[in-house]
Amino acid sequence: MNDVKARRKMRNVTRLSEIGEFPLIARLVRALPTEDGVTVGPGDDCAVVECDGATLLLTCDAAIEGIHFRREWAGAEAIGWKSGAAALSDIAAMGGRPRFMLITLACPPEEDVAFLEALYHGLAAVAARCGAVIVGGDTARSPSGVMVDIMIVGEAAGPRILRRTGARPGNLLAVTGRPGQSAAALIALQRGMDPGELAQAHFHPVPRILEGQWLAAREGVHAMIDLSDGLLQDAGHLAEAAWMAVDVDPDRIPISDAMRRLVEAAGEDPAAVALAGGEDYELILAVDPADFDAMQGAFQDRFEVPLTAVGNFTAEWQGARVRGAAPEKAGYDHFKG
Amino acid sequence: MNDVKARRKMRNVTRLSEIGEFPLIARLVRALPTEDGVTVGPGDDCAVVECDGATLLLTCDAAIEGIHFRREWAGAEAIGWKSGAAALSDIAAMGGRPRFMLITLACPPEEDVAFLEALYHGLAAVAARCGAVIVGGDTARSPSGVMVDIMIVGEAAGPRILRRTGARPGNLLAVTGRPGQSAAALIALQRGMDPGELAQAHFHPVPRILEGQWLAAREGVHAMIDLSDGLLQDAGHLAEAAWMAVDVDPDRIPISDAMRRLVEAAGEDPAAVALAGGEDYELILAVDPADFDAMQGAFQDRFEVPLTAVGNFTAEWQGARVRGAAPEKAGYDHFKG
Repeated sequence: MNDVKARRKMRNVTRLSEIGEFPLIARLVRALPTEDGVTVGPGDDCAVVECDGATLLLTCDAAIEGIHFRREWAGAEAIGWKSGAAALSDIAAMGGRPRFMLITLACPPEEDVAFLEALYHGLAAVAARCGAVIVGGDTARSPSGVMVDIMIVGEAAGPRILRRTGARPGNLLAVTGRPGQSAAALIALQRGMDPGELAQAHFHPVPRILEGQWLAAREGVHAMIDLSDGLLQDAGHLAEAAWMAVDVDPDRIPISDAMRRLVEAAGEDPAAVALAGGEDYELILAVDPADFDAMQGAFQDRFEVPLTAVGNFTAEWQGARVRGAAPEKAGYDHFKG
Repeated sequence: MNDVKARRKMRNVTRLSEIGEFPLIARLVRALPTEDGVTVGPGDDCAVVECDGATLLLTCDAAIEGIHFRREWAGAEAIGWKSGAAALSDIAAMGGRPRFMLITLACPPEEDVAFLEALYHGLAAVAARCGAVIVGGDTARSPSGVMVDIMIVGEAAGPRILRRTGARPGNLLAVTGRPGQSAAALIALQRGMDPGELAQAHFHPVPRILEGQWLAAREGVHAMIDLSDGLLQDAGHLAEAAWMAVDVDPDRIPISDAMRRLVEAAGEDPAAVALAGGEDYELILAVDPADFDAMQGAFQDRFEVPLTAVGNFTAEWQGARVRGAAPEKAGYDHFKG
């Protein structure tokens, strides 16, 4: 034991990296009081509260330079769009309607004003695309790098707000669109290849706002979450929230020809990218199999986007598996990294 | 012109430090769309919106290590309390009722978990003191230092929401409590002196939530703002928002015996500290002089806190003056500072 470690031990200091993100959150929120107006507290995509007679969905999402984005990989406008999309997608995941955004923007004094304007333009553009407006925020000085924090107030779009808890044994795991396209584009960019039509999925992902509202209105949908960390990890969150397991079949994930060609040309496995790739902002849901076929056709007709069953929920074990086998790598942790 | 400057010039880059905070905000928000639901957009203490039939006050406020706080000067619990108080005070400044808070907490992986827990405890404590609850948030990794961003949803407490615009020529400038106590305590701490009873004002300031609601309900009050940057600067904001001027008389600012003794022992001028010291979270307001005397007595009776006229609004010039003379130093700018 070296000196530093010995000193820490004596002072009884626990570093965040020793416990990780989810135990930290559990420690922070365990002593929080609550009140009658709080329908959903910490732990879901949004908090849901009753305020002055209204049902509100509240969420916030930070994007920090060097952690969540690097300017070598994306222009300022795309960084703003992607950061806003990540936050707006949390409202989509519960079937809500985003209305108002506050933006906290922290940066060093030597920052280029044009970069900040372009980033803000991207934020305003994705807000407008999703029916929301920026109504205020805060500007602050940061010691280094740009930090954006996005807070959204949404409202219930119908009588039902869909939580991540609620999946039942025998439910199907369904996914909107074609997951993995953002990750596939990134793989191409990192290898100096042209991502072609997948660039849109990476630089300008569009949160599934109307799709989320439509799905939340269907009785056969029992739980929903957006794809931010990757299909397998987020499916695990749905399972875990219901004290269950989920078994994913990668062969059933819809993969476009363009993505397959690009990922194979880069020497990677398209199914693995579809399973692990994050930042797609598609939705995944737990659906009653008796309702799925009719829902699938109606969804495709309404949005011209596929809705595909890619796995099953079961109470027979815990966690997320791939065709019955535990995946090699556990989920990403921001602090254990 | 050295090489770096020449290169910048060629690339036509404008650094944030060249334009400062308020011109940055003006550039960011100028192209923002708006909609019918937005009653007050960027530029006041809170945004005010109509959402699902409710009138909401929305605000966010960031506190960044090394910029807004240093752990040598305050413990984690006090850092959390002060950060939360700054945000809650924005709701007080419009006469609103704070209800729900979201907390974004960014920190490096090596951060001490006990520090984060104590900081969060301070946030939850000041929220409870003001009648609000924490309902969610985000945790993220930062490259260095702790960053807290606090977002608050409040509701209108009565029929009237008080803006910072609205001061009229001939109005009195009034202040709640005894401004400058937080700054006086800091002066003492920096000199190794015991701040005594002023420690509370510095480490655990209590936002004037109920006082703000009471004042917003009085017809004679025309505009209000909270004291975060210092009496003179914030009075200037009230004047500027009404395209007017304000003249402050430092001799009329109520200064406690404890503050006078402490500041004089430190070799400083108590009136100057009362005029310039920030982070008090008292309220300043523009009041019709015909209503002031009755209001002053009733306020004192209700809250056991003084309400004092310390200046006058006038249309004869622009900006903030001290007994008719322009102050030596312009206001603090986060990016030029």
